[in-house]
Amino acid sequence: MSGIIPKDNSFLDCEKAGLYKAIFLRRDVRSQFDTREIPGYVLDRILRAAHHAPSVGYSQPWDFILIKDYATRTLVKKSFIRERAKSISLLQEDTERQKLYIRLKLEGILESAINICVTYDPTRFGPFVLGRTSISDAGIYSVCCAIQNLWLAARVEGIGIGWVSIISISDLRRILSLPDHVVPIAYLCAGYVSQFSSNPDLEKAGWLERMSLQDVIHYEKWHGQRSDIQEDIHIANRH
Amino acid sequence: MSGIIPKDNSFLDCEKAGLYKAIFLRRDVRSQFDTREIPGYVLDRILRAAHHAPSVGYSQPWDFILIKDYATRTLVKKSFIRERAKSISLLQEDTERQKLYIRLKLEGILESAINICVTYDPTRFGPFVLGRTSISDAGIYSVCCAIQNLWLAARVEGIGIGWVSIISISDLRRILSLPDHVVPIAYLCAGYVSQFSSNPDLEKAGWLERMSLQDVIHYEKWHGQRSDIQEDIHIANRH
Repeated sequence: MSGIIPKDNSFLDCEKAGLYKAIFLRRDVRSQFDTREIPGYVLDRILRAAHHAPSVGYSQPWDFILIKDYATRTLVKKSFIRERAKSISLLQEDTERQKLYIRLKLEGILESAINICVTYDPTRFGPFVLGRTSISDAGIYSVCCAIQNLWLAARVEGIGIGWVSIISISDLRRILSLPDHVVPIAYLCAGYVSQFSSNPDLEKAGWLERMSLQDVIHYEKWHGQRSDIQEDIHIANRH
Repeated sequence: MSGIIPKDNSFLDCEKAGLYKAIFLRRDVRSQFDTREIPGYVLDRILRAAHHAPSVGYSQPWDFILIKDYATRTLVKKSFIRERAKSISLLQEDTERQKLYIRLKLEGILESAINICVTYDPTRFGPFVLGRTSISDAGIYSVCCAIQNLWLAARVEGIGIGWVSIISISDLRRILSLPDHVVPIAYLCAGYVSQFSSNPDLEKAGWLERMSLQDVIHYEKWHGQRSDIQEDIHIANRH
């Protein structure tokens, strides 16, 4: 058993609170990065958190490419600029949203301390991967769980993460010399920040609001209402 | 601003420890479920944690179907049994792994307190979803981040989660009356457990081992080695 795994299996109140706090205070950061470097031992911690994600058939199909080189980042930024322009043109019949979109800061590729590309390798421990025989995308789901672990660990370390999805997969493959079978899942900008926003940027900008939790809960079947069988389930009417 | 968001933006040592503890002690649970019901307010907490995941363009494309009905669960279990049999036949040329596979307990559909199907709705707030114009699967990635939040919240509450991926998507659509455009991403079994294993079940069973973190880290490019530019990054040679 690895030395990093705590032996005690139950959680103190403040430990429990820490998990929820990380979840509720996590933000997608684009504009508050400052110039501090991330110490190696802190980067080790957040990558280790990612590596301890669940994975289908224990296949651990993730890789993490750490990018500091500005020449590489500049190429990625150019890909972002091209993809952003395409997005803007898609909104040409909705000028109000188009104007809002143009005003939004959507990445921190050059300003952040480091960029991390998280990829999916479907060949790892394959071809037979336990639990991936019925749902072939299950390995991708594992990589996303790792990304969320990384994001939460970064948050408790005071490090902001911004996920740049306005980017071309084929550009990323070329820029990072990815083999054909490896799929880039996330391009993350990571760095210490001057502050974390109290609310998500897109909420503050008036793009969308958080839905009520009740609106995404169904009972027994799609659109099923709460009945006697779920008498003990009471989802509060708040976000 | 929602009342549940703590105002203090920094983390106490025990809060930080709580997040890492949840990450390292989380398990994929199949066989330790006991008969205790999950109180409604606890279920509310873990679903709310899921609902506070990051989502591309703030699209919140997830839904949660809570399933207690045994008739429904029995149909799902039958789907599992059929898909498991297919998996076993795929291993006919590797009798050693086939024997090991057959011995593994891979789901707790009927024994767990509740089942939760987490789905993806690509139409939510669409068709233009900010940040999903270049990578169409980005909405699926958001749903997986929500699943990981749910899993970690369950862990601090003492609730085990088992992700059943040996299951047919078309069976799930039919059993849960999902509209054609809605994609089931995860079928989760949730319940209090007698204990959490110290190590992942598949590690204990000798199926696979955890990789070294070093082996999944690359510098600047795929297979790139650490150089001067990453002099401050030292990934320890352990799991």
